[in-house]
Amino acid sequence: MKGISVGLLGLGTVGSGVVRIIDNHQDTLMHQVGCPIMVKKVLVQDLSKVRDIKIDSSLLTTSAAEIISDPEIDVVIEVMGGVESTKGYVLEAIRNKKHIVTANKDLMALYGSELLTAASENGCDLFYEASVAGGIPILRGLVDGLASDRITKLMGIVNGTTNFILTKMDQEGLAYEKVLKMAQDLGFAEANPAADVEGLDAARKMAILSTLGFSMKIDLEDVKVQGITGITEEDLHYAKQLGYKMKLLGTAQHDGEKVEVSVQPTLLPETHPLASVHNEYNAVYVYGEAVGETMFYGPGAGSLPTATAIVSDLVGVVKNMRLGVNGRTAITPQFGKNLKGPEEMYSKYFLRLHVKDEIGVLAEITSIFSENGVSFEKILQLPVRKKESSEIVIVTHKASLKNYEDILQMLEELSAVNEIKSSYKVEGSAGA
Amino acid sequence: MKGISVGLLGLGTVGSGVVRIIDNHQDTLMHQVGCPIMVKKVLVQDLSKVRDIKIDSSLLTTSAAEIISDPEIDVVIEVMGGVESTKGYVLEAIRNKKHIVTANKDLMALYGSELLTAASENGCDLFYEASVAGGIPILRGLVDGLASDRITKLMGIVNGTTNFILTKMDQEGLAYEKVLKMAQDLGFAEANPAADVEGLDAARKMAILSTLGFSMKIDLEDVKVQGITGITEEDLHYAKQLGYKMKLLGTAQHDGEKVEVSVQPTLLPETHPLASVHNEYNAVYVYGEAVGETMFYGPGAGSLPTATAIVSDLVGVVKNMRLGVNGRTAITPQFGKNLKGPEEMYSKYFLRLHVKDEIGVLAEITSIFSENGVSFEKILQLPVRKKESSEIVIVTHKASLKNYEDILQMLEELSAVNEIKSSYKVEGSAGA
Repeated sequence: MKGISVGLLGLGTVGSGVVRIIDNHQDTLMHQVGCPIMVKKVLVQDLSKVRDIKIDSSLLTTSAAEIISDPEIDVVIEVMGGVESTKGYVLEAIRNKKHIVTANKDLMALYGSELLTAASENGCDLFYEASVAGGIPILRGLVDGLASDRITKLMGIVNGTTNFILTKMDQEGLAYEKVLKMAQDLGFAEANPAADVEGLDAARKMAILSTLGFSMKIDLEDVKVQGITGITEEDLHYAKQLGYKMKLLGTAQHDGEKVEVSVQPTLLPETHPLASVHNEYNAVYVYGEAVGETMFYGPGAGSLPTATAIVSDLVGVVKNMRLGVNGRTAITPQFGKNLKGPEEMYSKYFLRLHVKDEIGVLAEITSIFSENGVSFEKILQLPVRKKESSEIVIVTHKASLKNYEDILQMLEELSAVNEIKSSYKVEGSAGA
Repeated sequence: MKGISVGLLGLGTVGSGVVRIIDNHQDTLMHQVGCPIMVKKVLVQDLSKVRDIKIDSSLLTTSAAEIISDPEIDVVIEVMGGVESTKGYVLEAIRNKKHIVTANKDLMALYGSELLTAASENGCDLFYEASVAGGIPILRGLVDGLASDRITKLMGIVNGTTNFILTKMDQEGLAYEKVLKMAQDLGFAEANPAADVEGLDAARKMAILSTLGFSMKIDLEDVKVQGITGITEEDLHYAKQLGYKMKLLGTAQHDGEKVEVSVQPTLLPETHPLASVHNEYNAVYVYGEAVGETMFYGPGAGSLPTATAIVSDLVGVVKNMRLGVNGRTAITPQFGKNLKGPEEMYSKYFLRLHVKDEIGVLAEITSIFSENGVSFEKILQLPVRKKESSEIVIVTHKASLKNYEDILQMLEELSAVNEIKSSYKVEGSAGA
C-alpha cells in the first residue's frame, strides 16, 4: 500500500500535537498500519506566524480548498474549531471521499448526526474520539468495549477548566474570580471562559456521550445546563462539612425507556471515585446493567493527549482503508428520542437560604417542602451572620424536578426568605 | 445475513453470564450486528446438574467435538478454563474455521502467541478482552484507544481476590488468614487460593497486558512474582504511618529499549488514584509518552461483568464477519524481547527488620546500605518489642535490584539481624 496522505485543517495547540505525534511515532504507526503516514498540507490563518514546532513551510496553506479538494489527500483532520464554516469544509471533504477525524465537540454536538450520515453515504469514516475527554478513549469504550451491555447511567467530569477551578477553590479556599484569573494565567482557562464556566462545553460532550451510550440521538438543547459561576466559598465549605465534594458533573440517565441529561454543579460523596478526580483531569463513570460500574480517567485536554486520540482515530481509519471497510462501522441510533419531563426527573438537592431571623420562619419553610411532598435528609440552621438574617442549608431526599422547582418558586415568594443563595444537585449519600 | 450460531465451552459462572446477556440483550445485539445471535450448543461436565439459569437442556452436551466440529457453529466461546486440553479444543476449533472468544488468561499467557498465529492463518478472530480485568475494556483501550502512543508504563491492580483481602486487612486491622477465610466464605477466594494469593493470576494478566502495551512478546516466566501471603498487620500499620497503601501491584516498564515486568506487594502513596481502588475492584493505570496518565477502572471478575467483555468481543467478531475481515485485525509484536537485568531495574524498597538491641547495630546496617550505594528516604527505629530485640523500618531511595538483593543477603548474614520480617517495593513518594 502506498503511503497515507493527511491534510490538517488547523495548526493550533492540538494540530501541532498531531504533527508531533505523526513525526515522533512514525515507526509505531507504520508497524500498525503497514505504510507511512504523511502530513501533506496544513491549513493555517497566517503563513508567517512563528510556531513552536518544526514544520516545512511549503506544507502550509491558507486555502482550505487545497486540502479538501486535493485528490491525493486520504484523510482530513479537522482541528480548526468553529462550527458553520467548518461544517461546510467537512461536508465538502466527505463529498470528495475523504475520511474525517475531528476533535470538534461543538460541531459533533450540533451536526454529528448529519455529518455521520453523509460520511456513511460516501463510504467515509468520521471519527471523533478526541471531541470528548481528550486523551481518554471513552467513545471506543462505550461503542466497542461495552457493546454488549445496556448503559443505564453516565456521569462525567468532562470539562478540565471548571474542574481545575473547583479543585483550587476547594483546596485553597479561594474565591471563584481569583481562581479563574489563576486558571487563565496558567492557560487552563480562555480569555473568554464563558463556554467552559457556563457549562456549555460540558453539555456538548454529554450530548455526544449520551447519544452513543444510550443509542438515542440527544441534542444539545436536550441537556439541562447550569454553570459554576455562582459557586461560592460558603457552598464549598458546607459541602465539605456534609461530606461532599462539589463537581461540575454531567449526568445522563436511561431508565429503559426515557432519558434525562444534565450538566450541573453537583455534590458528590467524598468517597466516590469521581470525587478524587482533581485539577484539569477528566473522568467518565459508566454504569452498565451487566458490567456494573466502570470508570475511564485521564487528561481531558492538552496538545499531546488530545492529539493521541486524533492519531489513534487516524490509525483506525487507515486500518479500515486496508481492510476496505470505511464508512461501514458506524451505528445509527437504535431508539427514537424519548426525554423525561420535569415530573419524572428525580434528584436530591442542596439548598442554601438566607432567611429573616424571626420566630416561625423554619416552620414556614418546612411546610412548603412537606406540601410538595419533599422531605429533608439533612438540615443545618446556622448562627446569624448578619443582623436579622440567618442561614439555612438543606439537603433534600429525592424529589422530582417539578416539585423542587415549585418549592423554589414558593420560597422566592415567601417574605421570610431574604435570598436563595444557592441550589445544586446532590448525587448519592455522604457517610457523614 | 443468517443468524450467528455460538458454541459455548463451559457453563460455569461466566458461561451462565454469557447465556444471560445473549438472551437479555438480544435487541441491542441485533441492532448492532444486524442479525440474531443464538447459543446453539454448550459443553458441560454433567448434564443433570441443577443450574440457576434457564437453558434448554437439548443445548447441553458433554462432547466438545459436537461444538468444535459442528459446521454450523460460527463462534466458539471458551469459558471452561484449564490449559492443555483446552488449548487442544481451541486449536481444533480454529482449524475448523471457528472464531474464538476466550476469558482464559492462563491459556493466553502461556499460548497466546501460538493461538493468535493459528487464528490469523485460518482467517479467524481470536479475542480475549475478558482475560484481563473482567469487565474493564482495557485491551481495546491499549490496542485501539492508545494506538498512536508509546506506552512507557503500566500499573495494574488486576486480581480482585488479593485486592479484597488487602482492603479488608487494612480497613479492619485483621490478619491475613482471617480475611482469606472471609473472602472464601463470600466467594471472592477459591478453596485453593494459591494462584491468586501467590500472584500467579496477576502475573498472567501482566504478561498479556505488557505484550499488548509494549508490542513485545512477554512470557509468564519473564514476570517477577511475589505474593501477599507474607503480609502482616504490622506491615500495613507501618505503611499507613508512612502515608502509603499496600496493593498487590503489577508493574511493567518500557524505557524505550528494555522492559521489566513484576507483580509484587507494593506501597503506593495514599493519594495515588490506584490507592483508592478497593475490595474486589480492578484498575489499570497506563502511562503514555503523549497521553500522560490514564486509568481504566471497574469490576475485575464476576459472572456478568466478565460476560459483558466476552459478548462485546463476540459483537466484534460478528461485525468483522459482516465486513469480511476476520483474522486480519491482530497485530504481531513490533519488538523482539529485550528484558532488563537486575542491575537495570530500579525501585524504592520498604524493609522491616528485627535486630538485636545492642549498641552499634544501626551503624552496621547503615554501612551495608552505603557500601552498596543505597541511601534511605526514611528510617524508623521502634521501641523494643521483645526482650533484646528491636524493630527497624526502612524506606530506601531508588536502588537497583542487584544492589538491593546484595544488601538483603548481607543483612541475612549479619549476626545482629535476627530476622528480615518483610521486604516490598515502593512506588512514588508519600507526602507524609
